[in-house]
Amino acid sequence: MNSVQFTAETSSNGLRERDFTVGEIPGVLWSPASGSDRAPLVLLGHGGGTHKKAPAMTGRAQLLVAGCGFHVVAIDAPGHGSRPRTAHDEQEIALMRQAMAAGEPVGPIVVRYNSHLADRALPEWRATLDALQELPEIGADGPVGYFGLNMGTAIGVPLTAVESRITAASFGLHWPDALAEYARRITVPVEYALQWDDEHIPRESGLALFDAFASKEKTLHANAGAHKELPRFEADSAVRFFARHLGRAMTSPA
Amino acid sequence: MNSVQFTAETSSNGLRERDFTVGEIPGVLWSPASGSDRAPLVLLGHGGGTHKKAPAMTGRAQLLVAGCGFHVVAIDAPGHGSRPRTAHDEQEIALMRQAMAAGEPVGPIVVRYNSHLADRALPEWRATLDALQELPEIGADGPVGYFGLNMGTAIGVPLTAVESRITAASFGLHWPDALAEYARRITVPVEYALQWDDEHIPRESGLALFDAFASKEKTLHANAGAHKELPRFEADSAVRFFARHLGRAMTSPA
Repeated sequence: MNSVQFTAETSSNGLRERDFTVGEIPGVLWSPASGSDRAPLVLLGHGGGTHKKAPAMTGRAQLLVAGCGFHVVAIDAPGHGSRPRTAHDEQEIALMRQAMAAGEPVGPIVVRYNSHLADRALPEWRATLDALQELPEIGADGPVGYFGLNMGTAIGVPLTAVESRITAASFGLHWPDALAEYARRITVPVEYALQWDDEHIPRESGLALFDAFASKEKTLHANAGAHKELPRFEADSAVRFFARHLGRAMTSPA
Repeated sequence: MNSVQFTAETSSNGLRERDFTVGEIPGVLWSPASGSDRAPLVLLGHGGGTHKKAPAMTGRAQLLVAGCGFHVVAIDAPGHGSRPRTAHDEQEIALMRQAMAAGEPVGPIVVRYNSHLADRALPEWRATLDALQELPEIGADGPVGYFGLNMGTAIGVPLTAVESRITAASFGLHWPDALAEYARRITVPVEYALQWDDEHIPRESGLALFDAFASKEKTLHANAGAHKELPRFEADSAVRFFARHLGRAMTSPA
């Protein structure tokens, strides 16, 4: 088993940020700068075409650390961030760009390619979680949440279906095609975001994926607006969702 | 125009509660006990068969006053609380009870009777708002929100459609039949709650009512569970919704 190798560290505004690797996987771990007793861990899955330190990731990490004192981790997905792309990655990305430029539906390509990336990403997330749980401030028995939209959902739904250490998950903005069968195996609390006027994901498709989760506790947040117009307050809502389910009171208003 | 006549006052836990009448209409006004400069006003509409001081009303008032420093008002709907029932009220209530006892759908009766009550309630809410805006701590130009589920939505949707002083509204748990045409005239921000497994309101009906709102900013919160299982955290969410839209920062975590 690979262990966590820390490679850089900074602190600002109460947030400690440590770059690390686990084998070939580059990651970043955010924690309270004040130090933290054993605290829950939230896995952040980034969207397609972005990376572990994209503004949406650092913003969510800041909210989760400041609001709840959690540890938060992101890793670069295969073919993303500082990681090499395969010939297959290049081909699929080119096809997506062509479809977008031609105004053709990108859904079928995104569904297929994200599913392929999920197959590569799942063992990497599990190895990362194994390694992080060796750290004394995280530990092997603490609660773990998963938070990811778009490609972060395409990876997170199968991961949550097979990874029993994840006890609450916040997803959104994907198609049911490759995910519904995994969603039907998920029973932990789920919060799911969709855009009511999504130009890529038909409304019925988003509702069908939410419907598929077997969770007794699940909440759909549907907002008026296009695919990229998810309101910022949904990130605050996800923080409160994890505060409720990972067992920490919020430490400040959000 | 009738003015507000205060008839009783108590204070506890930071909450000032004043009973009042406006003409024949009995109401209750909750405010911060510490006094309050001019602050926004939230109208609370209670559910069918309950009244202005039902636990759901006092609980929401507490959250809104403690969390945002708002004024909050509830009035007894026609035929509810301390108000007399007409022969028509008695007849409709008897029909609802019969349907429930027989396991028959109550929807058609609820839709029809609530629509009738809305016709009676709308001028009462407008008269109450006129009178409350004469109070110096509320004033004629402050923001006004409306918050009501079930029958509170059946009354609140037509009220919000015609009452331009209402600038944000939180609704939920009703049928589109008598309400969709009003919803199409509403353009202020809306938060709408429905239950994904509602045994009375078909899922498609709830989604159709949410879809009908013309608001550019609208959010659907759909939770797994039966009609009466709306999670308590949705009340906290409504408080944050009003904090965002009526222009007051939250004063404590919620």
